Order: sequence, then structure tokens, then C-alpha cells
Amino acid sequence: MSETRSVMAMEPFEAVAPRLVDVAMGRQKADLVVRGARWVNVHSGEIIPGTDIAVAAGRFAFCGADASHTIGPDTTVVEAEGRYVVPGLCDAHMHVESGMVTVTEFCRAVIPHGTTSMFVDPHEIANVLGLEGVRLMHDEAMDQPVNVWVQMPSCVPSAPGLEEGGAVLGPRDVAEAMGWPAIIGLGEVMNFPGVAANDAVMVGEIAATRAAGKTVGGHYASADLGRPFHAYVAGGPEDDHEGTRMEDAAARVRQGMKAMLRLGSAWYDVASQVKAITEMGLDSRHFILCTDDCHSGTLVRDGHMDRVVRHAIACGLKPMTAIQMATINTAEHFKLEREIGSVTPGRRADFLIVSDLAALSIDAVYGRGVRLAAAGRLEADMPARSYPASATGTVRLGRGLTAEDFAVKAPSGAGGEVTARVIGVVENQAPTRALTARLTVSDGVVMTDQAADVCRIALVERHRGSGAVTNGFVSGFGYRGSCAMASTVAHDCHHMIVVGTSAEDMALAANRLGAVGGGVAFFAGGKEKALIEMSIAGLMSNERAETVAEKADRLIAAMRDAGCTLNNAYMQHSLLALAVIPSLRISDKGIVDSVNFRLVDLFV
Amino acid sequence: MSETRSVMAMEPFEAVAPRLVDVAMGRQKADLVVRGARWVNVHSGEIIPGTDIAVAAGRFAFCGADASHTIGPDTTVVEAEGRYVVPGLCDAHMHVESGMVTVTEFCRAVIPHGTTSMFVDPHEIANVLGLEGVRLMHDEAMDQPVNVWVQMPSCVPSAPGLEEGGAVLGPRDVAEAMGWPAIIGLGEVMNFPGVAANDAVMVGEIAATRAAGKTVGGHYASADLGRPFHAYVAGGPEDDHEGTRMEDAAARVRQGMKAMLRLGSAWYDVASQVKAITEMGLDSRHFILCTDDCHSGTLVRDGHMDRVVRHAIACGLKPMTAIQMATINTAEHFKLEREIGSVTPGRRADFLIVSDLAALSIDAVYGRGVRLAAAGRLEADMPARSYPASATGTVRLGRGLTAEDFAVKAPSGAGGEVTARVIGVVENQAPTRALTARLTVSDGVVMTDQAADVCRIALVERHRGSGAVTNGFVSGFGYRGSCAMASTVAHDCHHMIVVGTSAEDMALAANRLGAVGGGVAFFAGGKEKALIEMSIAGLMSNERAETVAEKADRLIAAMRDAGCTLNNAYMQHSLLALAVIPSLRISDKGIVDSVNFRLVDLFV
Repeated sequence: MSETRSVMAMEPFEAVAPRLVDVAMGRQKADLVVRGARWVNVHSGEIIPGTDIAVAAGRFAFCGADASHTIGPDTTVVEAEGRYVVPGLCDAHMHVESGMVTVTEFCRAVIPHGTTSMFVDPHEIANVLGLEGVRLMHDEAMDQPVNVWVQMPSCVPSAPGLEEGGAVLGPRDVAEAMGWPAIIGLGEVMNFPGVAANDAVMVGEIAATRAAGKTVGGHYASADLGRPFHAYVAGGPEDDHEGTRMEDAAARVRQGMKAMLRLGSAWYDVASQVKAITEMGLDSRHFILCTDDCHSGTLVRDGHMDRVVRHAIACGLKPMTAIQMATINTAEHFKLEREIGSVTPGRRADFLIVSDLAALSIDAVYGRGVRLAAAGRLEADMPARSYPASATGTVRLGRGLTAEDFAVKAPSGAGGEVTARVIGVVENQAPTRALTARLTVSDGVVMTDQAADVCRIALVERHRGSGAVTNGFVSGFGYRGSCAMASTVAHDCHHMIVVGTSAEDMALAANRLGAVGGGVAFFAGGKEKALIEMSIAGLMSNERAETVAEKADRLIAAMRDAGCTLNNAYMQHSLLALAVIPSLRISDKGIVDSVNFRLVDLFV
Repeated sequence: MSETRSVMAMEPFEAVAPRLVDVAMGRQKADLVVRGARWVNVHSGEIIPGTDIAVAAGRFAFCGADASHTIGPDTTVVEAEGRYVVPGLCDAHMHVESGMVTVTEFCRAVIPHGTTSMFVDPHEIANVLGLEGVRLMHDEAMDQPVNVWVQMPSCVPSAPGLEEGGAVLGPRDVAEAMGWPAIIGLGEVMNFPGVAANDAVMVGEIAATRAAGKTVGGHYASADLGRPFHAYVAGGPEDDHEGTRMEDAAARVRQGMKAMLRLGSAWYDVASQVKAITEMGLDSRHFILCTDDCHSGTLVRDGHMDRVVRHAIACGLKPMTAIQMATINTAEHFKLEREIGSVTPGRRADFLIVSDLAALSIDAVYGRGVRLAAAGRLEADMPARSYPASATGTVRLGRGLTAEDFAVKAPSGAGGEVTARVIGVVENQAPTRALTARLTVSDGVVMTDQAADVCRIALVERHRGSGAVTNGFVSGFGYRGSCAMASTVAHDCHHMIVVGTSAEDMALAANRLGAVGGGVAFFAGGKEKALIEMSIAGLMSNERAETVAEKADRLIAAMRDAGCTLNNAYMQHSLLALAVIPSLRISDKGIVDSVNFRLVDLFV
């Protein structure tokens, strides 16, 4: 029987307050006392040495100079010996799916890094499984020994009209979800032009969230700080993690939003934006740290919120300020400061014992008064969970694919050459370029051009079993020889993207994913070189993060071996269908001009 | 037809968000634009010159460098000419009844001083009229052109067992009130020993408030920062305005409470406590300013929250910090930062135009986008209100009182002298001293002793019409000759306290209040010298604050003429039945030893 307590199992404050009072008075004894700590007090901004901290019923009962009156024969006493007691770290906005693991495995990976509260937006699974997928993540979230609150996805699908995914969510779904116990608000409102245009779906979803008194998450992915930005703020989003420049952070805070500064596996937005504090001198209270997207490899090798806090300190923030930005500031933003974000009476006893504050060396992690990890090793019993068939059987190809499915037919009447649109991948950037290329036609089929780094891309419809394939061309991966990669992680509709030099390898990779229920497969010369099975919605493995990270390493090695030298090549692959980001994309409906938001012909 | 909008009439954000967006984009035009202001930005802590502010539907729609695109032919344009735009000021905890006027008249008095949000605890009327009285104040609050939120009184009566007032409130009443639209939380939990002892009523009321997600107000009136203080915090109160020393403020903030620093008519708790910021260097974000109790005279002559902010600046706070402590800090405490506390899009357009920031010279006051006052003069149409007979007929004496009711009979068998307990008033302090005096007996009646400044005090039961009178003695007023003062403001049960040298004048004063429905009356030599009618619950006048202040001046003059030289003599009078404060008090049940919380005999 595990001692860990889930969100559901955690009794509300009012149910245990009399016990906390009795412990503070010494009439009852504490479950746990940490003695002789340096109290990192995020309310006052002080570090207070010689502090004892008593815990009962999973909450702090007493924080003061001497808790000896709370110690009884059954009290666990931990000698801090002058080490710091820091509130458990909060990740203010993140996607579990980016870790390619389940909620449980994500928690298992990040608890030893000091993360005890997460605000997760299950946007990816929502695009595959709709409200049922959100509920699946929500219910798993509530089982964890740390706090996982869920943001209801707001933009499913991201680009209505230009794509058709596994689900459509709208204001009614949002209103329904606002009644679920672990829903904390609306997930990042990515359709920022829609907000500025009073799009009915955006208006309705924000209204349903505000009527429920919950927090509207933002995502304003534009450098334009003019009218569209002001209109976006006026429409209701309360935070934003898409800023990249000092002036972005300042503009958001001035407008009454929270600036969420992001350090993910591929996001490096903290260094530039903390200058709004360190150089411009802005009040730091409305700045918050988050990760947004972390791969398993990052979690396993580099850490999670501990990595972000360390980085923020390295960027010039005082340790106290950086810690506030990952604790009390986050708690206040989500109206949860009665529950989390500080080591003070009544709050959940989520805390870290830290030996070096600036280095954030975490000796132990406690969640709700229970030691969950020590010396980087997990001690918590994680919940077991099985997934329904509806969640694991989501790759519906309808038929076996063949090389012919990936052979692009030349338009009737074409000569020996055609001019085709080509999606141009840009190193280290999410936007693509809209290129064109002259390609040879042979036997009515358009050929690739390895010399010009133009290979095939296909989007395989996988939600409705239609067997439909959209074909196109992509440049920038540098693939040589015969190879192909297929992925059912294909933001945001999560069909299947297949990129390859060889139609045969493309068919093999696609069919392999059909057989294993999704994930990523790499084939070269007719042989499987790497496979990450992600059987849950085609988005998440149910293996541990370490295992997934190893498989991801093999995938990257296979891509390198095939000639690809891009950083984050896998991410670039998975974003090629992201129809809301410029300039050229592929969807189940065709080739998308994502500057002018319209479908275009493959051939010019 | 008034343009002002009440809390009820104010449409929720989500109903008007599309209009705000349209205005921000310039597709619709603003109702009001303030041009060329210095924007006091309490989120970033900056003052940003050259800012335009556009208002629509009573809320801020756009705050930025140029709002010309929001100006149409019907837009009112105000040229700020470099003056400051400051968020409307918030009073985080106060009692309307202390002003001796109604909610409407309190608002009329304070709006020109820049107060646009108040958090009022109708504790006094609750002791007279119970839940009906709270509802009366609540409904009047919702009619105002500024924001008046109501804290549900928590301790009615204050001293159960030692007194019986007009009403008893408990957890069920609290749970009911939490569903009313303008209830923001639980009013100051004054029974701090009860919280530390897990008194069932306190536990139940706090639980009902927390279950509703609302804020529990605190009142820890003790210098003991040991276990009882820690237990009080663990029990749930989230703020406290009873601190008086720097260490009090620091202790509260460290424990995760908000330190509310109070400047009322007779409270001077800011100067010592701001040192926790200015000298100890604590983060100011969890410090808040409030008034608690202001008399009409203070409001009319000295101001309200503007006075507190000016004083806080004079005590060494930066103007920005002091303003944050009266705006955004308060809003965040009550989870209202989406509605009030800053000049940013989406919030209610409550703001001040200020020509000198450190002096807080307020040129104009706007509430929900409407100019409510300019150059210190109210422009708002205040709501009309009538009060039900149940609220105005609360002084029930049951019979005419006579001089004999105030003649203290000597105990049977007493000789020429008796030793009596005497309530000793202490200049400038709420606690009294428990004195004794040797008093002469004449014809079986105990005489007063003007040489020793011992006169009569009587508590007249006025809620149940029993005609019961408790008699005793008081020292410290310095009354000479024949005089008496009666008041139905008699904290906390608000019976009638009569103090006098003459039983005849006592009867006259008491009967006068019976005739006018309560208030304060002063008689000398058989003649009425001063009268403040307070017909609403015997606590509030329905006249304007200026009129009440003038009448209060006449009362003070009458007390002076009769020999009383105390500061705040009226307040001293009204606190003589306050059975929760040491040392000796009077109640409808007898003489109260308020150190040991028991009834004692008048004679020793």
C-alpha cells in the first residue's frame, strides 16, 4: 500500500484544519518534522535560518523557530542541518505528450528533479481522441503523488477548414470540462488572429472559462506588439509563453498578463526575457517559468523545472526571484496560493531539501508530506494504469500502404519536368519556407532530387481509416540513399507524416506504425533502423522515459546515418503539418499556404 | 437616469469582451479615451509616460502609446497632459458603521478621495439584525457606482455566554451568505482563542468559507507570536490588520498571510509596520493598506484611502509600492485581479487622474469608466434607498426609563460605604482597567464620587424590549456637574450604554434615543446638548457624512463642556461593553471580567 496521496485522495484543507491547529499547539503530534532548516520564504522574500517545519495530514502545520512541541514518538524527524527548504517547483505550462510518455511516466521522470506541480495542456491527445482523451489525461493526472492540473485544450483542430483531425472541440466541451475537478482553466489560446477577430469559437471558449472563474492561458506567437496584440489581451488570455524578446515580456506584464518564460528541450526564451527584470527593473512578481515542451531525453539527462530555475539564476536572477517565479508566482496566477507555492501553514507539504541554493542541488523531494525522491532517485510508488482500447487503437490506415501510394503522379499533359511546391525546413526555426523546384517526370511519376535535397513527404490520414494519402515534397533533411521516416506525432491533427527518399521505405515505415499503434519508425534500404512505439493515441509510449530516450537516441542516430544533420530533426519532421505556422505545410486536405490560410496545388 | 453602474448592473467581462476587442482593433470606438497620461503600472512597477487609455462598456479596452484609432465622434476625450493615471484605491477591510452613515453615504463621502473598491464587514449591524442586516448592507452595496464587496461577519455575538445581543450567526448562516453575489469571504475572525482551540463555530465558519473558495479574514489581536499565533494561522485566516509592530507585520507575511496595515480615525499602525519593508527589506507584495474604522469627521476632513496612501509614502514607502498596497495587492488577495486593482485591459475602468504622485493630488475619480468626482466634488448620482421598518425600529426599551432605573441600590446589609468595581478608561487605549472604589451609600443608593472621577454607567437592553438595566461605575471621563451621554453604538452587541453623573440626565438621554430610534444623545442639567440620530439599526444615520460630522462635533463639544478631556471620548464610551477586550466591561448579563471571561459582582 503506497503512502503517496493523489489529488483526489488529498483531503481539502477544511477537512484537516483542526488537526493542523492541534499540531501547531502541540496537542497532537506531527507526521513529519524537518528541523534546523534555512526556510526559503517566498512570501517575504527572505531566507530564514534555524527554522523547524512540521507536517500533518499532508499539509504544513507549523513553520517556526522551534517545532519540538509537535514531535511525538511516531513523528519522522529529518535533520536539515542548515540546508534549504524550498517550495516544490511548479511547471506553469507544459505538454506531457512532448515527453512521448504517459502522465505517470512523466511524473516518475520529473519528481526527482523537484517538480511537484504541473499545469498540463493535453492538446495533442485532444486532437486524436477529443474530450475523451482530455478526460483520460485528467483522470490519470488525479492519480499522481504530485499535483497535476489540466488546462482544457482550446484550439482543436488548430486550423479548421485546412485540416480534419480526430476531433473537434468547442465552447460546449469547454463548459463541460470546467466542471471537472482537476481542470484549472483553458489551455493556450493559439488562435490569436481568431481572438483579435472575435471568432465565435474563441469568444465562446474564453467566456465559458471566465464564467467558471478559471484562468485563460495565452499563446500569442507573433512579434507584432501593435493592435492585434492589444486586442488579444482585451479578449481575455491571462498569460503568454510565446514571447522571445525582452520587449515581449515587458509588454505582456504591462498589459496585466503573466509573462511565462520558457526553457524547453528546444525553447530558449528565458535569457533574453529575464532582462525585463535584470535590466529594465520590472517587478518580478508577474513573471513565471515554464517548460512547454520537454523530450524524454531532456528529462532524463538535464532535468525539468530544476533546469529552468538553474538557468534563470545563471541568466542573472537572484535565486529567490527565480524560485518565486517557479513557485508562488505560479500558484497565485492559477489562484492556488492557498494550496501550493510556498512552505507555510495550510499549504500542501510539497518541498525540496536543497544543499546549495544557487546550484539548486536537490537532496530530497517531498510531496504532500511524503518523501518521493532522494538523491535523484524516485521513492514514490507510482500508480498503475491501463488504457482502454479506444486510446490504443488510434492508427487506422484502413489498408496496407504500398510504394505506389507515395509515388507522386505528374499532372496530365506534363512534359519531362514539372515545377512543384516544396516545403523548406529552416534550421532551428518552426516556420518553413515556401520553395519551388523543377523536378523530372519519369513514367508519369515525379522524381525526387537528392542533389537539391528534395525528397518526398506524405500525410497519411489515420483517424478515419480512409487510406487517403496527400503527397508533396520537402527540402532540408539532407537524406541520402534509400530511407524513410514515419511519425504519428504530427502536430496538431496528428495524422501520419512520412518523409523519405524511397517510396518503398515510406510504405514500410507507415505500415509498421499501423501495426504497432503509432509512434516513429525509421527505415533505410528496406530495413527497420529505429522504432519508438507510442501506442497511446499514437502520441505516447507507456514505457519509462529512460527507455523512450534510448529509443529516441537510436532514431536520431538513424537519421544522422541517412545524412540528416539538422538539430531537432525529429521535431522538424513532426511540425510539417502544423498549418497555423508559416509558410508551407501539408494536411489531409492538401498542400497548405499557411501564410494566406488556403489550400494550394502541389504544382505551380 | 444615472450613467453610473452598480455591481449588479456591471456586465461580466465575458459579456463585453468582444466589444473590448473591437475597440482595441479600432473596429468600434471607445466610450472614453484618456490621452497623454503617465501610466502608473502596478503590474510592472513602472510609470510609463505618453500612454493613452481607452474605455468601453465600463472596462479598459486599450492601454498603449496611441489610442487614436479608438476615438470616434461619440468618444469623450480627456487630455491628461502628463498627469498620472492611477488605479482606483481599494480599502481591504473596513466597517461602514464606523462612519455612522449608510453604505450609500459612505460611498458619497469617499469617492472624491479616490476609493473605488471597499471590502466591508457589516459586523455591527449583524449584531443587531443578524443575517437580515447583513443582507440589507449587501444589497445596498450592490447598488453603488463603486465596488463594495461584503465580508460575512464571523463572530456574532463576540462573547457568547457573557452577553446576549440582537442575533446569533453560525456556520449555516455563513454557508448561506457565501452564495450571495457580493459576498467576498468571511469577516475578521476575532475569536482568535477559539480558532486556536478548534471552537466548533469558528471551525465551521472557516470551513464553509474555504469550501466556497473565498477569503477568510483575520483579526489576531495579541502580541503573542508563539504557539497561539501559529495555531491561528494553521486554522485558516488569510490576513490580519491587528498587528502594531514591525515584527507583527513580518510574522504575518512569513506565515503566508497578508499583513494589512491600518490607518483609521484612531488606528495608527502603518508607520511602525512599514518598517518590515523599508528597514527589514521584505517583499512588499503581500502587504496591504486598509482603514478598518473611519468616523465621518475623518472622511470629510482628512480623507479615506488617499490619506492612507499619502501617510504610507510619508512613512518612507516609494509611491509605487504604497499604491500597489492599495490596488493590485488587495485585488490579488481577494482573487479579484481580473476585475480591479490595475489599469489594464479587461479590468473595470476605475481610475484616478493625479497631478502629483507623492502627494496623491486627485484631480478626478472614475468608476467603471464614468467620472464620479472632480476636484474633490462628487458628480455621481448616488442611489436612493429606503429602509424597512425592521431596520429602523431597533431600539426597543419596552417602557419609559426613569432616574430610579439608574440609581444603584446598595447590597442589603451594607453600611455607609461599599467597595464597588469600577471600569477604568485608559487614554488612547481600547483595554480598560479593573478598578475598585469606596463609595458612599445614601438612603440605600450608592453615590458617585466626582472628586475621584467615578460616575455611573448603565447598559440598557434594547433588542428584546425587556427594559432591563445593568448598572455599574466608570472612571476616566472627567464629567463634572449634572450630565449624561447615551449611545446605542455599544460594541459589539449594541445595546445602549449610558454614562452619567446624574440619574435624571441618564434617563432623559436614554429615552431620547428610544424616541429617535437610536444614536447618541448628550444631556446636561436636564437639557439636550447634542444628538446624533442613527435610526438604521441604532448604528447609522441616513444623513450625509458632513451633517453627521457636524453633529459629532457638537457632541464632542458637549462632552468637553461637561469636563471630558479624553481623545476619542465617544469611541471610549462605545467600547465599554466590548466583552472580548480586557479588563472590565458591562453587558446585559452584568459586569464582565474580560480577562477571565466571567461575570462578576458589582460589589467586592
